[in-house]
Amino acid sequence: MSFRLKILGANSATPAYGRHQTSQLLQVENCYFLIDCGEGCQMQLMRYKERISKIQCIFISHLHGDHFYGLIGLLNTMSMGGRKQSLDLYGPPDLAEVITALLRCSRTVLSFHIHFHALSFREPVKIFENNLLTVTSIPMEHGTLCAGFLFREKPKPYRINKEFLPEDVTVPEILYLKEGKDLYDAEGKLRYRHSALTLPPRKIRSYAYCSDTRYQEKVIPHIQGVDLLYHEATFMQDQSARAASRFHSTTVDAATIAKKAAVGQLIVGHYSSRYKVLEPLLAEAKRIFPNTVLAIEGQDYLLEE
Amino acid sequence: MSFRLKILGANSATPAYGRHQTSQLLQVENCYFLIDCGEGCQMQLMRYKERISKIQCIFISHLHGDHFYGLIGLLNTMSMGGRKQSLDLYGPPDLAEVITALLRCSRTVLSFHIHFHALSFREPVKIFENNLLTVTSIPMEHGTLCAGFLFREKPKPYRINKEFLPEDVTVPEILYLKEGKDLYDAEGKLRYRHSALTLPPRKIRSYAYCSDTRYQEKVIPHIQGVDLLYHEATFMQDQSARAASRFHSTTVDAATIAKKAAVGQLIVGHYSSRYKVLEPLLAEAKRIFPNTVLAIEGQDYLLEE
Repeated sequence: MSFRLKILGANSATPAYGRHQTSQLLQVENCYFLIDCGEGCQMQLMRYKERISKIQCIFISHLHGDHFYGLIGLLNTMSMGGRKQSLDLYGPPDLAEVITALLRCSRTVLSFHIHFHALSFREPVKIFENNLLTVTSIPMEHGTLCAGFLFREKPKPYRINKEFLPEDVTVPEILYLKEGKDLYDAEGKLRYRHSALTLPPRKIRSYAYCSDTRYQEKVIPHIQGVDLLYHEATFMQDQSARAASRFHSTTVDAATIAKKAAVGQLIVGHYSSRYKVLEPLLAEAKRIFPNTVLAIEGQDYLLEE
Repeated sequence: MSFRLKILGANSATPAYGRHQTSQLLQVENCYFLIDCGEGCQMQLMRYKERISKIQCIFISHLHGDHFYGLIGLLNTMSMGGRKQSLDLYGPPDLAEVITALLRCSRTVLSFHIHFHALSFREPVKIFENNLLTVTSIPMEHGTLCAGFLFREKPKPYRINKEFLPEDVTVPEILYLKEGKDLYDAEGKLRYRHSALTLPPRKIRSYAYCSDTRYQEKVIPHIQGVDLLYHEATFMQDQSARAASRFHSTTVDAATIAKKAAVGQLIVGHYSSRYKVLEPLLAEAKRIFPNTVLAIEGQDYLLEE
C-alpha cells in the first residue's frame, strides 16, 4: 500500500532557477491530497504525469501567493476536464471569497461542487477522516493565519497468518482475529489465541507538513515521532535574524525541530531565491539531524509499510 | 531598432503537452509590453531570460483565466524584486476588482503603483502613446468583453544622408530636413531640397494581436496591411461549428482574415488541447495564407526596419 509524497515545487516567495513555488501531492493508497498550490502547480502535475482528476482534497496552508496562486487555474482545468466529483477544499476563510471573486469575474461556472472547509488556527483540529487516515491541522506561527497538516494512517488490522490458519475458523471469526481478539467456543472456552494465528499489524505511517513558520517548539508534541516531516527552511542559519523577522525558519530551526520531535526523516524546502545551489542548506541541516533530504521537484518520497 | 515579439505561451483554455497558456512579450526598442498573462507567465519570462523589471505596460485582452491567471503572481514577483517604477495595466474593468481582492486576501502591499486603465470595448480606441508607437484596442467578438491590440510605430524622420550633407547646414536645419522640409535662405530662396540630402524614413512597423474572437470581418479595416498579425486559431476547420459556438476561430478563419487584411505575416496560436501535433493547423492555414507560421513558445518573431 503506497504512501508517497511528490514534491511539485519547493521554492519560496518567487520562482527561481526553474524551481516552482510550494505544492505537494500526497498519495495514500487510492487517496490523493494536494497540499498547497503555487502558481504552475497544474503544469507540474502534468509534467510528472500525475492525474489531476484523482485529487480529492486540497489543503491550503495560508494565503501568501506562493502557496495558492495556482489554485484557480487548477480548478479551471479540472472543470474543463468535465470533473463531476465534488472537491474538498481546506483553507483560511478568505480563500472562499477570493476564489469566488475570480470565478465570478472570469464568468466561470465550475462543472463540480467545492465543499469549502474554513480552517481554525487556534489549536490542532482533526479536519478530515476516512477509512485510511486522518488529517489534522496544526497552527503555525507565520504572522498570518497559517496551518500545517498532519497526515496519519489509522490503526491497521492484524494480518492473518494463512500458514497457521485452521480450517474451522469462519469468516466472521477471521474479522475478530484481525481486530486482535481471541476466539472462544460457545461455552466460553478459548479456542485460539489471535497471536497464534496472526502477524502484527502493518506500521502506521505519518507525514507532517510544517509550512510556513518561524521556529516554534510548541509544534513538537503534535508531530512527535512522525515518519516524515517536511519543515520549511527558507534560509541558512547566518540569516536567522531575517528568518525570524519574516516568520520563517532556518535549516538549523527545521533540523532542531526534527531532532526534538524524533521524526524519522526530515525534508527541508521553501528555499529563498537567494540560494541557487541547495547543498549547503542540506549540509547545515544534516549536522543537526543527519537523516535530512532536500525537497526536489519531481521526486517521490516513499514510506514503507 | 528592434521590433520583437516573443511567444511565452500559445495554448488555449488549459495547458497541455508542456504548452503554456497565452502570454506574449513585445519589445519595441527599449519598450517592453506584456500581452496577456496566462498562468506561469513569470516562469516563462525567467526561462527565456527576459527581464521582468523592464515591463512597462501589461495589456489583458479579456478575463478568461487562460489570459490572466498569471498576472497576480507576476505582480507579486515584481514587488518582491523591489520595483519602484509604476506599471500601466490595461484590461476589462473587473480586472481591477479581482487583483485588488487577491492582494487584499494575501495581505500584499505592492512596492509600486499600478495605473489601471479600464478598456472600452465598443470601438477602436487609442489607449497608449509614447514617442515610438501607439497602441489601439480593437473590439473582439468573444461572448465576453474582449479586446485585441494594435501596436503601430509612429511616422519616422527622414534619415540624413551624411554623404551629401553640405557643411553649411546647421543643426536646426538638420531637424527640418528630418521632418521632410526643404531649406530656404533668409530671402526665401531655396537652398536645398530635402530629397537631395536625405534618405527615406525607415519603415513603420505594426503588429496586431487578435485574441480571442470568432471570425469577424469588421476587424479587417483596423488591421489592414499590418506587418505581423497574431490571430487565434483554436481549432481546425472540421471543428468550425464548435469554434463558432465558443466564439473562437479556426485556422481557416484566421488565414482568411490575414488574406483579406493583406497582412505581411500571420502567426496562429491559442491551440486547443485536442491538438498534440500542430503542423496540420499550420498546413491548413497556409493553404489560404501562405506566409503563416505557428506561435511557438520561446520563439522570437522579428520585424525588420
